Amino acid sequence: MRSLELNHPWGTAHLKLVERPDPFPGPREVLLRMRTASLNYRDTFIAAMGGYSPNSNAAEPVVPLSDGCGIVEAVGAEVTRVAVGDRVAPSFFPNWISGPPAPDKTLGALGAPGGPGVARELMVIDADGVSKVPAFLTDQEVATLPCAALTAWRAMFVDADLVPGDTVVLQGTGGVSILGLQLAKAAGLRAVVTSSSDEKLERARALGADHLINYRTTPEWSQGVRAATNGRGADFVMEVAGAGTLTESLKSIRLGGHIAIIGVVSDPMSPGPILSIGQMMASSARMQALMVGSRENFEAMCRMIELHRIRPVVDAVYPWTEAAAAIGAMGQGKHFGKIVLQF
Amino acid sequence: MRSLELNHPWGTAHLKLVERPDPFPGPREVLLRMRTASLNYRDTFIAAMGGYSPNSNAAEPVVPLSDGCGIVEAVGAEVTRVAVGDRVAPSFFPNWISGPPAPDKTLGALGAPGGPGVARELMVIDADGVSKVPAFLTDQEVATLPCAALTAWRAMFVDADLVPGDTVVLQGTGGVSILGLQLAKAAGLRAVVTSSSDEKLERARALGADHLINYRTTPEWSQGVRAATNGRGADFVMEVAGAGTLTESLKSIRLGGHIAIIGVVSDPMSPGPILSIGQMMASSARMQALMVGSRENFEAMCRMIELHRIRPVVDAVYPWTEAAAAIGAMGQGKHFGKIVLQF
Amino acid sequence: MRSLELNHPWGTAHLKLVERPDPFPGPREVLLRMRTASLNYRDTFIAAMGGYSPNSNAAEPVVPLSDGCGIVEAVGAEVTRVAVGDRVAPSFFPNWISGPPAPDKTLGALGAPGGPGVARELMVIDADGVSKVPAFLTDQEVATLPCAALTAWRAMFVDADLVPGDTVVLQGTGGVSILGLQLAKAAGLRAVVTSSSDEKLERARALGADHLINYRTTPEWSQGVRAATNGRGADFVMEVAGAGTLTESLKSIRLGGHIAIIGVVSDPMSPGPILSIGQMMASSARMQALMVGSRENFEAMCRMIELHRIRPVVDAVYPWTEAAAAIGAMGQGKHFGKIVLQF
Amino acid sequence: MRSLELNHPWGTAHLKLVERPDPFPGPREVLLRMRTASLNYRDTFIAAMGGYSPNSNAAEPVVPLSDGCGIVEAVGAEVTRVAVGDRVAPSFFPNWISGPPAPDKTLGALGAPGGPGVARELMVIDADGVSKVPAFLTDQEVATLPCAALTAWRAMFVDADLVPGDTVVLQGTGGVSILGLQLAKAAGLRAVVTSSSDEKLERARALGADHLINYRTTPEWSQGVRAATNGRGADFVMEVAGAGTLTESLKSIRLGGHIAIIGVVSDPMSPGPILSIGQMMASSARMQALMVGSRENFEAMCRMIELHRIRPVVDAVYPWTEAAAAIGAMGQGKHFGKIVLQF
Repeated sequence: MRSLELNHPWGTAHLKLVERPDPFPGPREVLLRMRTASLNYRDTFIAAMGGYSPNSNAAEPVVPLSDGCGIVEAVGAEVTRVAVGDRVAPSFFPNWISGPPAPDKTLGALGAPGGPGVARELMVIDADGVSKVPAFLTDQEVATLPCAALTAWRAMFVDADLVPGDTVVLQGTGGVSILGLQLAKAAGLRAVVTSSSDEKLERARALGADHLINYRTTPEWSQGVRAATNGRGADFVMEVAGAGTLTESLKSIRLGGHIAIIGVVSDPMSPGPILSIGQMMASSARMQALMVGSRENFEAMCRMIELHRIRPVVDAVYPWTEAAAAIGAMGQGKHFGKIVLQF
Repeated sequence: MRSLELNHPWGTAHLKLVERPDPFPGPREVLLRMRTASLNYRDTFIAAMGGYSPNSNAAEPVVPLSDGCGIVEAVGAEVTRVAVGDRVAPSFFPNWISGPPAPDKTLGALGAPGGPGVARELMVIDADGVSKVPAFLTDQEVATLPCAALTAWRAMFVDADLVPGDTVVLQGTGGVSILGLQLAKAAGLRAVVTSSSDEKLERARALGADHLINYRTTPEWSQGVRAATNGRGADFVMEVAGAGTLTESLKSIRLGGHIAIIGVVSDPMSPGPILSIGQMMASSARMQALMVGSRENFEAMCRMIELHRIRPVVDAVYPWTEAAAAIGAMGQGKHFGKIVLQF
Repeated sequence: MRSLELNHPWGTAHLKLVERPDPFPGPREVLLRMRTASLNYRDTFIAAMGGYSPNSNAAEPVVPLSDGCGIVEAVGAEVTRVAVGDRVAPSFFPNWISGPPAPDKTLGALGAPGGPGVARELMVIDADGVSKVPAFLTDQEVATLPCAALTAWRAMFVDADLVPGDTVVLQGTGGVSILGLQLAKAAGLRAVVTSSSDEKLERARALGADHLINYRTTPEWSQGVRAATNGRGADFVMEVAGAGTLTESLKSIRLGGHIAIIGVVSDPMSPGPILSIGQMMASSARMQALMVGSRENFEAMCRMIELHRIRPVVDAVYPWTEAAAAIGAMGQGKHFGKIVLQF
Repeated sequence: MRSLELNHPWGTAHLKLVERPDPFPGPREVLLRMRTASLNYRDTFIAAMGGYSPNSNAAEPVVPLSDGCGIVEAVGAEVTRVAVGDRVAPSFFPNWISGPPAPDKTLGALGAPGGPGVARELMVIDADGVSKVPAFLTDQEVATLPCAALTAWRAMFVDADLVPGDTVVLQGTGGVSILGLQLAKAAGLRAVVTSSSDEKLERARALGADHLINYRTTPEWSQGVRAATNGRGADFVMEVAGAGTLTESLKSIRLGGHIAIIGVVSDPMSPGPILSIGQMMASSARMQALMVGSRENFEAMCRMIELHRIRPVVDAVYPWTEAAAAIGAMGQGKHFGKIVLQF
């Protein structure tokens, strides 16, 4: 079978398509034939550095990408959760089944630095690390769920204490934010979307966004959030943690509101924003950093996606062998929704 | 001004329309001119017994009814929350502003046994005990909110830990259940409605119900709930606590699910259902009794109602001077939604 | 190796000591040599009926008992959580690692009806289903923890929203209640203990109980709870769900308080108490049924037991081959704390 | 009656003792004769700037100090909560009775910028804004509770999800941290205390601290926290948010742990720490800013303080007319516990 692999020196230019022996599942494992994969912003760092930083010392070779959709081609003798022929998504954290995060659960994230990713035709994974997915979704849509959708889901519906009618702010139009918008609207929340592009804002409106703010023309976008909430402030902000956004998020949030720190577009090497203690105190904000979620979270999200027939937005599709080009497009940040690879 | 009053011997036959002096608000109080009122099942007991039981020893005279909509006609010198001309709803528990229930908060429920109710042309109430209401609602619709809608709201969105996509069961088609259905659907939940009438079930479907069960033709309606949830069981049941329903609720609920006990149609004098400890243990159910909620809950609910333009279902409207007939209709249980009085 | 086994016809008189082949662990399993076991009230039912009811159709033979302490004697090739020589306790629910209960987690409870129990010299169990235990505890003390202590822990510290200084009521002096008392006192809670024996109450006082109520001399013990809390009521009751206790529990609880239903001494065949909806509504009580908890709960509890050097109360110790006599003593209910078997 | 007052130009040098007319309570108000007051770090800023910043535009004159203990000397006609002769503490936020923070609740904090403080012989306050206090405490001890103790209480027992046996880190030996230590130990938590003084650390040990770290000799004190928790990290850090501490807090916290941001010693004019998004993501930390709490929180805390007979540490006592000297001592930061003023 063929696999994409990276070795030092890093960089998408060095991404290689290699032939590897077909793997076989152990007694509690399953063998998946991958159909699709999707990209997250982290994949641009991993491609460039082998991990989240230049000194990540990733085990080589790195098989990139965490998110995908595959068909169960074989199961180990003790496996009962899934059967041959089932369509599944591997978990971003295959060891995280339930409950809060813990070190033994967040070890082994797919696609480095935890372990080999989904950019290969066949992969073996623990049966506990896959979930069946809603039948109405295409393979490409399924691939968007494991990291981006689950991050948005957990931020809003597990970590935060939102009630329907609350106001959420979604920064930009990347995968987490657009899936967050779709989930928020199906959950009866009011959604404010920010973007530097009026055209993207219009696309967000078509997905149900209640308020649109162009942060290029309105750098102090917190004023728009205040206006949209009768001065009360937003109950929730999905903070992608790029340079300077946190200050506006703190100005946007209501007293005691929730800011989910998902760090999705922040350069892991940059020093980060300056946190104003005065601002934090004035807002009594809760800032909750998070990374994806558990399989149990994923299954709950899938029940909701199925009920509401939510169709994730696929921005572009590349053949999986052209992952380098896809990762390059991801880095340019012009997408709206998700970039997908097709096997 | 005119007021409806009850004295011992109780009974709607003795409900009198009397003339009383116009009241004046103290420094922190407001004077309301009532526009509408609505009935709850409790009002049938209070009319019949002066309270929730024959030995309730209510202070006489009883001014009945807890729920209404009025216009602020005057305000005390220290009042800043509302102004003359504002349209407001008095709180069911005027002293319950925020946080969990407490004895000092749940004293003074309107309409006996706590204090005089809304069935009068003018009423004085603490300014902290009223809330402004969404402008798009009619006066009749506003009157449906203080008890029934807030009970449904708190049960689902304050007490229970629901996530969108979860399944809720609403028993019957009374005020709490129908408002619960409307709120649930706007919040992205899956709703199962039970009723003894296929016609009412069809009306529930029109409001968004996903699954309909006629408990007359299917007395073991828990089987229908299991079928609707792939065997998993419902995440939530709004238990009106009539004879025998609790057993089916426990069979309907998923492991660790939430049963809200709202006691809305249970005869307060009946011994109550027999609780099977074995059933409770098998389901690890949480059974949470509740009565209405705080003003803060009410305000959050109104934000959601406004966002979604939810229109409560008004089943029938009577002139307020014909409250006896309206209470009689309430007791017959043929309504779908709320029975309203117009001043 | 030797094992205790039960077959139809049930009854402790038919408990047999049999010789079975030594088991071997699979790749992710461990082999334990059992040192001690402890009894729970459920074991009296299982011995009498093969399960929780006469029609439980348990898989035969039944190896009884869920709680024990053992030494890891061998580990499968993929096991890293524990090593040979570690002292561990098997989980009551070996598949329940984290998060809320779910059907796949609560399958396979040890000691029937889920699967074979700990009453055998050697047992093989999934490595995920065991936990290391505090070194300062004796083997006998460790055996008291998996079901009784964890039930008390979860009821108070996972399910309920207690703050230090709150008042908890512990019914009787069985294993859950006495461990509950010890945990409650170490957590800064006020503890009220009820018993029919003044002598047992004095022993409870020695363990830190703040208030003692003899429910034989004071059948309306809720009055004692009210007196102990300045009329406010208890924040929490550990309801063992025997006949008639629930009514007093509802009278004891503060508005909005928490009643943990642990069903520990209720006859699973009895119809159960009559639940007064009026009483439930008046107290806005939350009644939460529960069965034991997750391994993650167990590990958190062990950290607390270690910090506070809590020593569970061992009432009596029997040789494990005399389990029938020990189960008989359990059924008589004269114990204070736990009955333990020594291998 | 006499009052301390500040006017522009600010500074303790300008603190004046002035004579003012005796106030009288309105119908829902009480008149207090103050017995004691205590200082918080905020009082140094308010004395220096009239508020939290140079442009706070405080209403003049400023009556400083938020925390005190007084005797009810008169009550308005409608007051039932307290009676003449009761010993009470005014709430830091007199309008915050219950529930989460909200703008109308946190208006009117005593001692500027909200409203006049407690540094006066007689004060009138809404009856809802005072609480009775445990009888065993001295007047001086009572004065330590409204801000410092309540901040520590809320941070640990309302905002965070701690279970007994969890590890909390308390930075330094100021009022919040020392009261936090006492509350934490009574609640069965493990406490790590940091300080630059070995002598203060020994005093913390005498109050029950389990682990002591001198951050002068061990600037990377997070390593000490890791060592004290078997590498797991602390479950909770009380972050006083001085320069540079947040980085170590993030290194100290376990995956998914809670950092309470109380900002107690941070200069409100300083830009604040640089927040590393990478560090936040790596720890999945929750950073919750907070300011004091509600009256309901205060009452729950008092029940716990009474049960455990917790005696707050009074570091030094000054005559209230020497508030300037006391504020000066506060600014030097050499205290251990609280600085109190006696009327």
